[in-house]
Amino acid sequence: MKEFIFYDMPGRTEATKAWSPNTWNSRFPLNMKGLKYRTEWVEQPDIKALYGQLGITTSDVTWDGVTPFYTVPIIHDPNTNKIVADAAIIADYLDKTYPDVGPQFFPENTRVLHAAYNTAFMEACHVPLFQICVLPTWNNLPLRSYELFKRTREVWLGKLEDIAPEGTEKGEAKWKDLEEGITKIAKWFEVPGGDKPFIGGDVPVFADVQLAGRLHWARIVLGKDSKEWARIKAMNGGRWEKYLHGWQQWAQVV
Amino acid sequence: MKEFIFYDMPGRTEATKAWSPNTWNSRFPLNMKGLKYRTEWVEQPDIKALYGQLGITTSDVTWDGVTPFYTVPIIHDPNTNKIVADAAIIADYLDKTYPDVGPQFFPENTRVLHAAYNTAFMEACHVPLFQICVLPTWNNLPLRSYELFKRTREVWLGKLEDIAPEGTEKGEAKWKDLEEGITKIAKWFEVPGGDKPFIGGDVPVFADVQLAGRLHWARIVLGKDSKEWARIKAMNGGRWEKYLHGWQQWAQVV
Repeated sequence: MKEFIFYDMPGRTEATKAWSPNTWNSRFPLNMKGLKYRTEWVEQPDIKALYGQLGITTSDVTWDGVTPFYTVPIIHDPNTNKIVADAAIIADYLDKTYPDVGPQFFPENTRVLHAAYNTAFMEACHVPLFQICVLPTWNNLPLRSYELFKRTREVWLGKLEDIAPEGTEKGEAKWKDLEEGITKIAKWFEVPGGDKPFIGGDVPVFADVQLAGRLHWARIVLGKDSKEWARIKAMNGGRWEKYLHGWQQWAQVV
Repeated sequence: MKEFIFYDMPGRTEATKAWSPNTWNSRFPLNMKGLKYRTEWVEQPDIKALYGQLGITTSDVTWDGVTPFYTVPIIHDPNTNKIVADAAIIADYLDKTYPDVGPQFFPENTRVLHAAYNTAFMEACHVPLFQICVLPTWNNLPLRSYELFKRTREVWLGKLEDIAPEGTEKGEAKWKDLEEGITKIAKWFEVPGGDKPFIGGDVPVFADVQLAGRLHWARIVLGKDSKEWARIKAMNGGRWEKYLHGWQQWAQVV
């Protein structure tokens, strides 16, 4: 089988190079299915041109609801000569094209349930985690991406340094939001069968990929030995570090 | 097989007797599995005593977070001599005890996804629908239940007549909330495979039961020929009346 090309955006150092939760939502699936690929690293200011080169368009828009939003992940599968963007669509593509290897990310008849999960998950996990992680994420970007990120994000977020300032009442309120949100997710597991390692039971589904992608992102940009990650580790009886532990087998960056 | 006893709370008229979305969340499953049952109608002020008679307790609490909340549905299955309360737990019980008849409400490894669905669903559908339906729900109750409902609900909701007054700006804002919430649900179906009749595909799952239960409640208490139900019918290209149409086969009240 020919090697896939996987488009990702780099972080500043080798250890933090693969940092984006959105691209982990495709890197994990590629690793889980054992599909051979090489990463093409694209800085954020170059993603729009990449869409042009690949001959694809986007229907995503930025915060203003109008400006097209060019983003990764994108995969190029030379075996079918398909180019696919958007992590959920990529997972669906991999399910359908390579059903015989690795897990099925959307088990039959769970696609609508997954869509509802996405709504609840983004609100409970992504929104508060973003508040905590946006500044270290920005600080991890190579210079050109750093400048673009700051310029585009500050239009709708205000100064990145002012979102969750360390040791302030405002910052602590953001940590409280995060603990509340992530505790909501811990409660989803308090059901019959919820004692298995993954949302999908013994085998992860796409809902797990999303959760692992967000947590992995946080650990990378906060730093696994940071006091911020220690706070997250301490939440919900230590379940999140333990959850991520199950993903180490699929966390290689190639 | 011996007949189940199904505990439900009555509405004011024969046509609106089975009105509660929570009990439809068990009546639908009983009907879908074709299990024989008779309904024991219990007025709201008598539910606490019923718990005592049945020898069961509740871990639910009311809005204040402290006062125990005694509610139906409850089923008594004389075949196993089990008494089970709470619609999700009842559905799980029916899945496990009667796996060979009717649909499986929680297909394997979807229990945590269902919990996430519940979070998203309650916010998108139940919360705004409740604002529209609480007054007609109250008006549909027999006198003793009516008095209890008003007394307990108004402590945390204020005057029921003032929640979504017809033809006012405030009332219209509630309708806008409902349309936004329910449109979010319509969007969950905009995925590959989302063109099938149910969230569970060709066969309903518990997520469908919850959605059908809420819509069925709204149609009953608003009145199927009311201008309020006509507004809901007009939303999202008429999908909700069409969705409920698929449930007529399981909507018998016995």
